[in-house]
Amino acid sequence: MIKEGDKVLLYGDDGSKIIITVEAGKKKGTHLGHVDMDELIGKEYGDTIVFGKNNRVFYILKPTYIDLIFNMKRRTQIIYPKDASYILFKLDIKPGDRVIDTGVGSGAMCGAFARIVGKDGKVYGYERREDFYNLAKKNLEYWGLIDNVELKLRDISGGFDEVNVDALMLDVPDPQNYIEQCWQALKGGGKMGIICPTTNQVQEVLEKLYEYPFIDVEVWENLMRRYKPNPERLRPFDRMVAHTTYLVFATKVLKK
Amino acid sequence: MIKEGDKVLLYGDDGSKIIITVEAGKKKGTHLGHVDMDELIGKEYGDTIVFGKNNRVFYILKPTYIDLIFNMKRRTQIIYPKDASYILFKLDIKPGDRVIDTGVGSGAMCGAFARIVGKDGKVYGYERREDFYNLAKKNLEYWGLIDNVELKLRDISGGFDEVNVDALMLDVPDPQNYIEQCWQALKGGGKMGIICPTTNQVQEVLEKLYEYPFIDVEVWENLMRRYKPNPERLRPFDRMVAHTTYLVFATKVLKK
Amino acid sequence: MIKEGDKVLLYGDDGSKIIITVEAGKKKGTHLGHVDMDELIGKEYGDTIVFGKNNRVFYILKPTYIDLIFNMKRRTQIIYPKDASYILFKLDIKPGDRVIDTGVGSGAMCGAFARIVGKDGKVYGYERREDFYNLAKKNLEYWGLIDNVELKLRDISGGFDEVNVDALMLDVPDPQNYIEQCWQALKGGGKMGIICPTTNQVQEVLEKLYEYPFIDVEVWENLMRRYKPNPERLRPFDRMVAHTTYLVFATKVLKK
Amino acid sequence: MIKEGDKVLLYGDDGSKIIITVEAGKKKGTHLGHVDMDELIGKEYGDTIVFGKNNRVFYILKPTYIDLIFNMKRRTQIIYPKDASYILFKLDIKPGDRVIDTGVGSGAMCGAFARIVGKDGKVYGYERREDFYNLAKKNLEYWGLIDNVELKLRDISGGFDEVNVDALMLDVPDPQNYIEQCWQALKGGGKMGIICPTTNQVQEVLEKLYEYPFIDVEVWENLMRRYKPNPERLRPFDRMVAHTTYLVFATKVLKK
Repeated sequence: MIKEGDKVLLYGDDGSKIIITVEAGKKKGTHLGHVDMDELIGKEYGDTIVFGKNNRVFYILKPTYIDLIFNMKRRTQIIYPKDASYILFKLDIKPGDRVIDTGVGSGAMCGAFARIVGKDGKVYGYERREDFYNLAKKNLEYWGLIDNVELKLRDISGGFDEVNVDALMLDVPDPQNYIEQCWQALKGGGKMGIICPTTNQVQEVLEKLYEYPFIDVEVWENLMRRYKPNPERLRPFDRMVAHTTYLVFATKVLKK
Repeated sequence: MIKEGDKVLLYGDDGSKIIITVEAGKKKGTHLGHVDMDELIGKEYGDTIVFGKNNRVFYILKPTYIDLIFNMKRRTQIIYPKDASYILFKLDIKPGDRVIDTGVGSGAMCGAFARIVGKDGKVYGYERREDFYNLAKKNLEYWGLIDNVELKLRDISGGFDEVNVDALMLDVPDPQNYIEQCWQALKGGGKMGIICPTTNQVQEVLEKLYEYPFIDVEVWENLMRRYKPNPERLRPFDRMVAHTTYLVFATKVLKK
Repeated sequence: MIKEGDKVLLYGDDGSKIIITVEAGKKKGTHLGHVDMDELIGKEYGDTIVFGKNNRVFYILKPTYIDLIFNMKRRTQIIYPKDASYILFKLDIKPGDRVIDTGVGSGAMCGAFARIVGKDGKVYGYERREDFYNLAKKNLEYWGLIDNVELKLRDISGGFDEVNVDALMLDVPDPQNYIEQCWQALKGGGKMGIICPTTNQVQEVLEKLYEYPFIDVEVWENLMRRYKPNPERLRPFDRMVAHTTYLVFATKVLKK
Repeated sequence: MIKEGDKVLLYGDDGSKIIITVEAGKKKGTHLGHVDMDELIGKEYGDTIVFGKNNRVFYILKPTYIDLIFNMKRRTQIIYPKDASYILFKLDIKPGDRVIDTGVGSGAMCGAFARIVGKDGKVYGYERREDFYNLAKKNLEYWGLIDNVELKLRDISGGFDEVNVDALMLDVPDPQNYIEQCWQALKGGGKMGIICPTTNQVQEVLEKLYEYPFIDVEVWENLMRRYKPNPERLRPFDRMVAHTTYLVFATKVLKK
């Protein structure tokens, strides 16, 4: 049963999605019309609500984490679901893990780690830009994940506070300059993932990685293609995302 | 510190990987030579061990979940990391969730769910073939994940025992025949993922999905490309996996 | 030396392309400004001309066939260079060949065949819609290729006039209904290419192909990815064409 | 009607392909059995022949150019049909063109140009390794294309003999070192295509291209995916070619 304070996703038949937080006795203005939020209270997820000038039907859903990050205020440099999910799996993230995420940006990847490590784990988020730090803090609070995260407003060139972390994600403009710091923070056998949007960065990062005791170095890219869900005329959509980033993975060993 | 009973991955410089369970006072025969397991005890992850006729160096790592599933006895119809990770993310799996997985097969996806839902959640695994059921049971025990899973040896044509599950994965030869049963088991707003290796299956599944109250139907495929990690000659490997499966996703609503 | 009647492509530094036919004593209005065509006469290809309110520099090039087809009036259902080029190669088109093209549409593929078969070969173009027939005729005249083509305004359900053609391209909404007619027109060992935008069409076409003496049946799709040509930040463009069509190829034999 | 001296492709139902040149009164030994070539004489293309210990049926076809190049003695660094066809189209090759191809290698691309430019055009093939030069000569003779080609055994660092060529293909290990020579040989508006297997080469070539009067610089890669031609279970083959080369294209202008 939906109650005050819940986040709900209103899903229209044309695929439009609106996320709102339920407040009793209030109306919420959206670009598709005004929602009387009292009508939501007491309904079940999967139920419908009608609003807007054309009395359109919307399904009431619980927003997924993907819904939440695509709904964020700021979406520049957002990490795509295709990449975020693969990173979680390759870095072997599980409940209880201790993970460093840097730079935090708007916090989407930080939150993705935080959801999985849970209350027994911890995500250490490093961000040097105050505007991003504040945005990420606000987003993580809104998503209800801030308790699993320790956000730090500072540069990483002097190294990280933590040692023996299970995994680390490096998403900064010059990743090749922080390979040593990452090595220091990871536990033996710990996993690192690095975001490299250009081939030049991949080359620079690889060169640096080979100077330190890292093994099992892999470089991947991920092309997701979506199909029009029409059983009579099944075919891909006309256009697709061609590139987000290359993903570099490596495993720390004690010496080489 | 590595101790008796731990699973360790021995990683050779050529990328070879061997997983063994440490037993004190014993030697383990592998295709690369005999490992004196007493030498492992007391070492740290990230450390090295030397064995084999050429005294090759191997790094001692903790196997990831990907390492474990690629090391399974039976690998037919294994779900690939690229697909498994995307399913986890699209089905919005998190600690505490209740998830149905059917058919279980060798248990790789069941275990992937189990790792994330944790001890506060539960995976209900349905498998009708006894050989697969036994194999999955053995694998899940070996991976230490069986406590989060309730395995059931039975057909799903009569429906599932559970209702109101958060998510459900359908991986059977004739998914189009079980759409109603899946709808019954899901909660309002619950997420379903369906494995369809052929375009014909996608078409049949889509037709059926539109007969039931499911919305937000998406069809995806995932092409992962790996690069040779050589900074001087960066380029993809010559060949890649071209196809594993199409992934169909849908969300249950109460009525349409 | 550029002279009256030549087609020239004016190429701006931002990648903009304008194609005009040179007429002495006249100005040509374009969306980028007025071109005094007398200034073009006597210049060489590769030279520059300045025009427009900002005195922008444009390079004078001879339009390629790709330039010409992307500059056509009507661009719906245009065959993409990636597909057109592969079809030419797979159908083994060379000077002197006799080729059937149906439906002709706006004539782009017809012209692609005509350029290669040359004056010793012939393209037989079948089109049943009068508007397309007229458009294709106009385009082929404009491209200077009409002499190599015999355009026919008529339906193909009654079969083709030609027999023993070297190759045939079938690009109609219901290709599965004309497989027999195609078989009749081809020579022994002749090559057929079929445009199938959806997986359903591929399935239907394959079923029909197996009822007739066709061998070496292949189904392909072509994903071209373009990179931003920046040596310091080499990476693909953000988006790409995800799908145009599946391509089905088959070879006629006399009996099966 | 097949006669002495013809090249024929024998196509088995399992997709096996054998190319032989018909000689009267002789038997040809193949890995699938002995072919009595007198049986071929007088048959039509598309007809069948039976040979081998299991009396297998083979279809008699005329080999396509793709068949011929995949049947060549030496196949290292062969240019793939997907790339060869796109190069022909992007370089706008047509009957009568004058084209430089360097390095010639085993001659496959040289022959692809030669087939299209025809007897009114000419391909100038530069190769500095004598073994490749001899191999290409032999292959081009065998394919009946040598008359359209002028093969030269020499290095290109001193430049090309020709000027004002319509198009040029550069396929050497260090393409970045010959950009000036290529510019000299091309006509104004002439097209160049460059084979760059690695991202590092693309970067180096782009840097050099921008030092000379070249415009319309494009970088592409081509992913072809083949499907199992089964109408009941339509899906891609499990594996595919992931990478052959990046293709760089540019157009010469007189000055910049």
